[in-house]
Amino acid sequence: MRPPLDLTTDVVTLTEQLVDIESVSRDEQAIADHVERALRGLGHLTVSRHGHTVVARTDLGHGERVVIAGHLDTVPVNDNLPARREGDLLHGLGTCDMKGGDAVILKIAATVPQPNRDLTFILYEAEEIEAAYNGLNLLSQSDPELLAADFAILMEPSNGVVEAGCQGTMRVDVRTRGQRAHSARSWMGDNAIHKVGGVLARLADYEARTPEIDGLTYHEGLNAVFVRGGVAGNVIPDECVVEVNFRYAPDRSEEDAEAFVRAFFEGYDLQVTDIAPGARPGLDVPAAKAFVETVGGQVNPKFGWTDVARFTALGVPAVNFGPGDPSLAHRQDEHVPVAQIEECERALRTWLGGSA
Amino acid sequence: MRPPLDLTTDVVTLTEQLVDIESVSRDEQAIADHVERALRGLGHLTVSRHGHTVVARTDLGHGERVVIAGHLDTVPVNDNLPARREGDLLHGLGTCDMKGGDAVILKIAATVPQPNRDLTFILYEAEEIEAAYNGLNLLSQSDPELLAADFAILMEPSNGVVEAGCQGTMRVDVRTRGQRAHSARSWMGDNAIHKVGGVLARLADYEARTPEIDGLTYHEGLNAVFVRGGVAGNVIPDECVVEVNFRYAPDRSEEDAEAFVRAFFEGYDLQVTDIAPGARPGLDVPAAKAFVETVGGQVNPKFGWTDVARFTALGVPAVNFGPGDPSLAHRQDEHVPVAQIEECERALRTWLGGSA
Repeated sequence: MRPPLDLTTDVVTLTEQLVDIESVSRDEQAIADHVERALRGLGHLTVSRHGHTVVARTDLGHGERVVIAGHLDTVPVNDNLPARREGDLLHGLGTCDMKGGDAVILKIAATVPQPNRDLTFILYEAEEIEAAYNGLNLLSQSDPELLAADFAILMEPSNGVVEAGCQGTMRVDVRTRGQRAHSARSWMGDNAIHKVGGVLARLADYEARTPEIDGLTYHEGLNAVFVRGGVAGNVIPDECVVEVNFRYAPDRSEEDAEAFVRAFFEGYDLQVTDIAPGARPGLDVPAAKAFVETVGGQVNPKFGWTDVARFTALGVPAVNFGPGDPSLAHRQDEHVPVAQIEECERALRTWLGGSA
Repeated sequence: MRPPLDLTTDVVTLTEQLVDIESVSRDEQAIADHVERALRGLGHLTVSRHGHTVVARTDLGHGERVVIAGHLDTVPVNDNLPARREGDLLHGLGTCDMKGGDAVILKIAATVPQPNRDLTFILYEAEEIEAAYNGLNLLSQSDPELLAADFAILMEPSNGVVEAGCQGTMRVDVRTRGQRAHSARSWMGDNAIHKVGGVLARLADYEARTPEIDGLTYHEGLNAVFVRGGVAGNVIPDECVVEVNFRYAPDRSEEDAEAFVRAFFEGYDLQVTDIAPGARPGLDVPAAKAFVETVGGQVNPKFGWTDVARFTALGVPAVNFGPGDPSLAHRQDEHVPVAQIEECERALRTWLGGSA
């Protein structure tokens, strides 16, 4: 039996302990049990458990409430456990995405018992897989009042810099059709793969829009992510599908995004298979402004889709702010600079009026 | 136990009997046993068995020898057995490809004991699958003397018209490469699928050559038969492959064909994965000329690759001549006009000097 998490240890050691509790999506029971037990031991928080999602709240009667959230799951193990400290870096699955952030949450929960704002800590399951399993998504359905807040901070890796807003994402299948024939008599058929040349030519000519929104510059992208066609080595194919991913800036609604893509591929058969809205930065909210000022004033646009958009959809302005380089997430060699974990902890503690 | 094949029955009934002995490639034991037993019962033929390939020869001392061959296997069953007679058509797996032709071979073997040329009947296994299993291929390695002849007739479906020569076939992979990146930051990567647009544009602009060779007009074809690319729904793909099939007229050698394709796709990474030579019509050989005259003088070019090329490579001029529409081969609803089976039997019998 693994010893309980020790919230009196330093944040880097705590990160190591969290990393060493394997927690691939759909296998978060052990880590959620450890987190729940540690938080219940603190006394000043009201703790509740929802599946493998743990919620802990202060209730100090402040006029403002902030959610601080992190997911407990990781992508599959890839020969990168246990955690391994090497100089200024901590290596291993989840060090970057996002147990460094989770450790910061637990340290703040344990050591700032009288924050200057009421806090809701959420450590949740299944962020890395389909939305149907996502702990925040489930919580928004079962106990939406627990997500109510003036502002939310997701401690996803962002190099310790505030990333605001997030781009929307949309997936469409562009399909061409033809007529099968034996390839020895190809002129009897109509090659659907050849017709995809026109689709790909448009994509190659695409010029990305880079709109400025609330002072941040976003960068859209329209890309084929899959192409599939073919029946047999001696058959002229009668169908070909290009799967296209559109990443769109948060000044477009889902409807605008779809209209753009339909116009772009005019003349082709197009089917939308997936769409998720973006989120505007929302930095005009006082709580967000104060946070950005405390952590140094720098804000970057978020290109990838994160649960920030889920909060925005609930009417809660949200940002990403956590240790780790997001481009290392999901890589076998993911790691985090220990100084970033410590710096994130310090910044939050300062903002919340905790003692140094 | 199924009754033995009855070679005294009419050719259409015999076709039905052969169809009802299921013989998907690699499962030809039963049909080869039946064929071997029927041929051994005839007395005037020297019969030998090689795996599930049966060879039967006359040895009358004629100055000329002709091979008459057909494969015994079929593509997989597709809810199209047993044989079903409907008016002038016989339906079912193998009726067209090619048990009608096999029945003609068995009838000629049984009823023309004194042909005006020496004959080698070959009923062979595994034509529908990889060449490594092909009965003719195996025989050319184990007993090449059994394939020696002045002329060969493959009774593959050709609508009862002589089809001469055959086009070569070649397969190449055309590959594009790029750089992976998360699709939310697509400008950090380099999309390999987009680059395939140029490959497909060339294919769409391809104009087929239609050379005349020994009086027959061939028709080449260059087609994408597969396209594959993509890593994940949120990743810019770093590789895409177009599999291209080149069907080339028999005035090109394999080397010429490869040179053409390399020049066509100049600037792209190209790998030849498969190549088989074509066969010139070879109708200038006396035995071939006489055969064409007897069966009515009409000759069509063969576009698809068949074992005709295998004979040509052995120095034996060969043609296709059999009942059934080749475009119905491998289709669930394959069928054959019974009149074509009867007509092919009559034509061969006449050519071989048999009594009507």
